[in-house]
Amino acid sequence: MNQSNTKPQTLKGFRDFLPKEMAIRNYVKNTLINVFENFGYLPLETPALEYSSILKGKYSNETDDKLGYFFKDNGDREIGLRYDLTVPTAKVLAIYSNEIQLPFKRYQIQPVWRAENTQKGRYREFLQCDIDIFGSSSPIADAEIISIIYAGIQKLNFKNAIITINSRSVLLDILAKSGIEKDQNSILQSLDKIGKISQDGVKNELNSKGLPSTQIEKLFNYIKKAQPDENLKQILDKLKALNIPDSAYVFDPTLVRGCDYYTSTIFEVSINEPKIGAIGGGGRYDNLVSTLGGPNIPAVGFSFGFERVIDIIQELNLIPQINKSKTKILVANFGPETETDILNLISNLRNKNIPSIIYPDNDKLAKQIKYATFLNIPYLAIIGTDEAKNNQIMLKNLETTKQKLVSFDELIKILK
Amino acid sequence: MNQSNTKPQTLKGFRDFLPKEMAIRNYVKNTLINVFENFGYLPLETPALEYSSILKGKYSNETDDKLGYFFKDNGDREIGLRYDLTVPTAKVLAIYSNEIQLPFKRYQIQPVWRAENTQKGRYREFLQCDIDIFGSSSPIADAEIISIIYAGIQKLNFKNAIITINSRSVLLDILAKSGIEKDQNSILQSLDKIGKISQDGVKNELNSKGLPSTQIEKLFNYIKKAQPDENLKQILDKLKALNIPDSAYVFDPTLVRGCDYYTSTIFEVSINEPKIGAIGGGGRYDNLVSTLGGPNIPAVGFSFGFERVIDIIQELNLIPQINKSKTKILVANFGPETETDILNLISNLRNKNIPSIIYPDNDKLAKQIKYATFLNIPYLAIIGTDEAKNNQIMLKNLETTKQKLVSFDELIKILK
Repeated sequence: MNQSNTKPQTLKGFRDFLPKEMAIRNYVKNTLINVFENFGYLPLETPALEYSSILKGKYSNETDDKLGYFFKDNGDREIGLRYDLTVPTAKVLAIYSNEIQLPFKRYQIQPVWRAENTQKGRYREFLQCDIDIFGSSSPIADAEIISIIYAGIQKLNFKNAIITINSRSVLLDILAKSGIEKDQNSILQSLDKIGKISQDGVKNELNSKGLPSTQIEKLFNYIKKAQPDENLKQILDKLKALNIPDSAYVFDPTLVRGCDYYTSTIFEVSINEPKIGAIGGGGRYDNLVSTLGGPNIPAVGFSFGFERVIDIIQELNLIPQINKSKTKILVANFGPETETDILNLISNLRNKNIPSIIYPDNDKLAKQIKYATFLNIPYLAIIGTDEAKNNQIMLKNLETTKQKLVSFDELIKILK
Repeated sequence: MNQSNTKPQTLKGFRDFLPKEMAIRNYVKNTLINVFENFGYLPLETPALEYSSILKGKYSNETDDKLGYFFKDNGDREIGLRYDLTVPTAKVLAIYSNEIQLPFKRYQIQPVWRAENTQKGRYREFLQCDIDIFGSSSPIADAEIISIIYAGIQKLNFKNAIITINSRSVLLDILAKSGIEKDQNSILQSLDKIGKISQDGVKNELNSKGLPSTQIEKLFNYIKKAQPDENLKQILDKLKALNIPDSAYVFDPTLVRGCDYYTSTIFEVSINEPKIGAIGGGGRYDNLVSTLGGPNIPAVGFSFGFERVIDIIQELNLIPQINKSKTKILVANFGPETETDILNLISNLRNKNIPSIIYPDNDKLAKQIKYATFLNIPYLAIIGTDEAKNNQIMLKNLETTKQKLVSFDELIKILK
């Protein structure tokens, strides 16, 4: 083993998660998992590394050349790190078709890697959190995904969140009626910015893209009059039957969503107050799985922007209890004379499933209290020689600093 | 997006985990997390990728050259995939010393990557599951780690598991008394095989390594007479005070553990009936953190062999309930006429926190039942036009195939 002389450093765009950050991440992860499992969705995991041929050519050349982590392994295989969770799932559907019964409802929460330019809120390693139904074209499937989004934002205490819903076919119909046949994707990309740069901004941009102003007026006229198509109407009806309140979602004919692979329904959830923007999006993508090398399977799904959710929860302070320690009590250490007593106590506490921690060294009490306070542990148990003799525990409330003598049974009652 | 023509394939030594496998993995993971948190240990996570300089030169040249996944990123940085969880934690202790209060009790459960020769039970991506106390030299810390192992194997229902305990200083003392000064590590490596090749096998091996037979006899004589040293005695005393039964652990002066970095206590947990061998190991390593570039911090810890545990649980069928679905009921689909009713029902079930699944398409009932059976879902809810009219549900028990009409309240009572 060589002595390392370099100052240790974490790679730019990568993060170490200390216990305080892990508490928030685990809270969000477990909250969403509970929602997904309540809806009968099952967990799936795939490897971090795949053959490059699985990953490449699925998004754009830019992704392959600049954003992907690709390399050769020791066996000279061309491999790469997982870039998203959809491509690996398409692979799974292709390989294990005999072991998977459709409709396949799965959730997948795993990190992905992208060599993004690092900036606030952009990371090179981040968690993706996907739910999808594979193998159903029914509007019930679309409505179910939307109702999971609703349940998720409720459980995460997001007030003022709204689910915006549209369909690619509504958009294409608007374009057709407006006589826009060329550069449709480019026009839609401009339209997508309406929330950011307002209607006038979009009009200016379309103008600079060479769209005649009469056609621009026509476009916005048809947007104003746009209605959900037959399929989208059915989905909205099913949302009512699923008891999703009207205030939770809105039809918005200007919603575009970036990805070209959506085939009909698209949706996005955003928080408008404070104006934070989208925290996730999804839609129906009936051709993607076959394009990715899987069988011909319709699909609809949603991806929670996990890192965005974490940032917002911290910003809005949505989980005040997160600073509370899961560990209920620190058992202080007063050296050899009462060591057997404190070991006995900690073992009994843990047997009662009370998360508790023992201070292993006979340090000064002030240091032990400082330690408990740093960890936000609410109580301290002291057993000195007197307490040991009388089979009692001095219990100190570290918030009020008050202390009192209690028996073990009384201690359990207080901590439960 | 290009059409992919290659037959999708997962890399050798890597695994996709379908829902059935995920159920077992999540059960083990959550069981261990509950134990760790009951002992007041806190979660830590570190990035998959690190600078090569952090990872390299920490184990052996073989690791760096053959077993590591090292490459250059797009910014020409030399980087590599995490090889274990100890080196990244040493890095964390070095970087964030101001944000971490010692003793630092952390658990870490994350995948690591090694380009191992693939064979049964050997994977190139596998989960590590570590618990460690950093910053305490107290024998209480050693005893606590051993008591966590005990709690873990209890919660995982491992009968006939035994924790073997020894100390490097006991081993070095035996060698010194036997007059063995040269090639100590090589002698210890042979001794380590005693469980596999028996005492005679070890004797033969030592003989072939050139150790005179008088010295070999001396060695085994001192092994027979070996006693725990003062520090180990203290640890064993503390195990008693922690109410760990005598039958759970044994002092074994032949236990070596491979890693050279252990400085005193070493331990291993193994299952002897059926003879399965070690499912985890650990010990005290007071110099490793500083060697790895961190500050001078004593440490003691343990690593559960997660993949080994998974294999054994499946082999011994230790969790029969694992085949039961978390999803309690499938709501069948009979088409448009009762669609609003079934959507209403599923939303009410989920509001009562009863994990339930809806069949999105109006397929034949036999197909829907087959689907529920495949997923091990115990009940099926049917709402035809008659049931809808009378505000009732036909509940079918898929095990007994019996069915009866129930109200929603009755349904909840049965499913809760």
